Amino acid sequence: PSSKLPGQQESIFSKMSRLSAKNKAVDLSQGFPDFPTDDRLKELVTRAMNSGYNQYAPMAGVYELREQISNKISKLYSREYDPEREITITNGATQAIYSAITAFVGKGDEVIVLKPAYDSYEPTIKLNGGVPVLIQLKGKDYKVDWQEVKDKITSRTRMMIINTPHNPTGTVLSREDMHRLEETLKGKDIILLSDEVYEHLIFDGQTHQSAALFPDLASRAIICASFGKTFHNTGWKTGYCVAPAELMAEIWKVHQFQVFCINHPMQRAYAEYLKDPENYLGLPEFYEKKRDKFLELIDGSRFKAVPSGGTYFQLLDYSEITTEADTKFAERLVSEHKLATIPISVFNIDNRDNNQLRFCFAKTVETLEKASEIIHRI
Amino acid sequence: PSSKLPGQQESIFSKMSRLSAKNKAVDLSQGFPDFPTDDRLKELVTRAMNSGYNQYAPMAGVYELREQISNKISKLYSREYDPEREITITNGATQAIYSAITAFVGKGDEVIVLKPAYDSYEPTIKLNGGVPVLIQLKGKDYKVDWQEVKDKITSRTRMMIINTPHNPTGTVLSREDMHRLEETLKGKDIILLSDEVYEHLIFDGQTHQSAALFPDLASRAIICASFGKTFHNTGWKTGYCVAPAELMAEIWKVHQFQVFCINHPMQRAYAEYLKDPENYLGLPEFYEKKRDKFLELIDGSRFKAVPSGGTYFQLLDYSEITTEADTKFAERLVSEHKLATIPISVFNIDNRDNNQLRFCFAKTVETLEKASEIIHRI
Ligand SMILES: CSCCC(=O)C(=O)O
Ligand SMILES: CSCCC(=O)C(=O)O
Repeated sequence: PSSKLPGQQESIFSKMSRLSAKNKAVDLSQGFPDFPTDDRLKELVTRAMNSGYNQYAPMAGVYELREQISNKISKLYSREYDPEREITITNGATQAIYSAITAFVGKGDEVIVLKPAYDSYEPTIKLNGGVPVLIQLKGKDYKVDWQEVKDKITSRTRMMIINTPHNPTGTVLSREDMHRLEETLKGKDIILLSDEVYEHLIFDGQTHQSAALFPDLASRAIICASFGKTFHNTGWKTGYCVAPAELMAEIWKVHQFQVFCINHPMQRAYAEYLKDPENYLGLPEFYEKKRDKFLELIDGSRFKAVPSGGTYFQLLDYSEITTEADTKFAERLVSEHKLATIPISVFNIDNRDNNQLRFCFAKTVETLEKASEIIHRI
Repeated sequence: PSSKLPGQQESIFSKMSRLSAKNKAVDLSQGFPDFPTDDRLKELVTRAMNSGYNQYAPMAGVYELREQISNKISKLYSREYDPEREITITNGATQAIYSAITAFVGKGDEVIVLKPAYDSYEPTIKLNGGVPVLIQLKGKDYKVDWQEVKDKITSRTRMMIINTPHNPTGTVLSREDMHRLEETLKGKDIILLSDEVYEHLIFDGQTHQSAALFPDLASRAIICASFGKTFHNTGWKTGYCVAPAELMAEIWKVHQFQVFCINHPMQRAYAEYLKDPENYLGLPEFYEKKRDKFLELIDGSRFKAVPSGGTYFQLLDYSEITTEADTKFAERLVSEHKLATIPISVFNIDNRDNNQLRFCFAKTVETLEKASEIIHRI
């Protein structure tokens, strides 16, 4: 059959996970935590099933969960979202992103994407007939060139996507960045898609600059977030998006026909669990220690850390070792050295290669130590 | 913001569920069973969570579950699907349908839809720039006019959607229908999307005519199915689709960016549960009795049953009572009489009104009795 995405490959995450399993490698590739999910949260799912919450949830999600999300955003980012009309529970943030793009991007519409970028954005834009307008983040610290963003905006620009803390680089947008963004979009009919799935994974005393904090951004923003990344259960596939009611109404037109609703027992469990903010407020510290442990472990090796401030990923520069392309090197690492990572070039414009690999450090100390032994041998 | 689906309303299922709750009505509207989910199945979810299956499942789904589905289809419909390449687990059949349409239907592509039709097909076709080509089912028994289907096929026809047993009418396609379908599609490059979510809900000694049974159809068919409807847990949002590998490869290009994967613990539980076919083989009998009970209960009222042979829906003709439009009558039933149903006109071409309402009989005897008391009073 003819293809709407000719040449589209298996995702790099599926590919590296597959190679990792095949080679029985230490797996720091696909981003998922190997910490146990809180027993209490699991018990809440069991309780929800036993309480009979086994039929369809409401289309936009369990009301009590939307209320909790509203409270959380109000507390953390001082903005009020109406649980009834401005919040939707999704099959992971990926589905929120997909629905948001599909609701607003049509044939010929341009969408600004900062590269390197999470791999779902561009195919989703293309499936909708849209045109990704790619802008490379600049320098070793992956900064946004706001002048370039301004220059690339046209009358066809329908949406801009940001992601902070940023996957795969781990960089975060500053307050100053957000103000530049406000300025750049001012007076323009452009929707902001803000991928904030790593909102709670931010280090070194920085605070997360959610689009919700900036009224001029929030009024045009669809903010996508994830429970899986926050509560160590990416496999429960529960995320959400928030947006002003008139944007959410359009997202619902897609969401209702795409999935109708998502898993009900998990939603009930999160609704209860979110009542206690202690369940997520300790996360930055927890992950900062993880990152520091990982950096300490690899210190003295020929892999050099690229400075970062968030997410559970760390880029390591391997140019002291080889000038080999990162995809080749990643394949050799997993097959010869039994260490699975993610190459960065696949997320860059024209697969630009910086001789960097992405390591997920959301792993037990034991796993990180095994990885580090390998890293020191190379 | 400008809309890609202008005029799209809240789905009739959300609307009637909302009105039902508001009026504290007896709810025979949205299709979901009010029977308990098997304790063993719930225990299997708990066990999966406790065994640590809380991170991403593979993109196409848990392999062991795909194997079980392959076995089931092999046993019931004598066709072999490769679990590795031809089966995908989805967020309910709705998401399978959405991915299948999105993977193959592009701008200007025509898709044949038999009306009345499940309400997700047309918006999904339109979101992809496709053109729904609508064909009304004929007569009181909603038969397919195969000559009309043949006449409506053009060089732009990319897909045809069938649904058996059929929602909302409860009719089923016969062997003869399936042969006419084979004949109609022969030699044409048209994909068949076969919505078989009610495959196990078929009565009166009929057998389900899956597209999988007919080699000429199966070779072009994407078959969508549901666990929620089979195991009384529509809220677990687990369905699947099967298709020849070259079609599935295109569906994956959409699925991976739309949801990446779906809920992991539920998949593990079904993988175990499906090992025992007794868990679904008794369903036709169970539901046939339900239907017969419902028909017996309403006998002598002014609502007249439209003959049907499957699904957990029963159409009742109310033309003895009023000539009021079915949407109006349904609203009056729920607000004045506290009985929630689904009007049929919303699924028909030009909202054609046959003075029929759809009643979901997947309810406890107590609920059906309450409904019947109301029905007899009207
Ligand atoms: C949805 S699979 C990818 C997980 C992830 O976010 C990542 O590894 O970047
Ligand atoms: C996905 S909500 C609708 C449930 C259903 O299939 C129906 O009532 O027809």
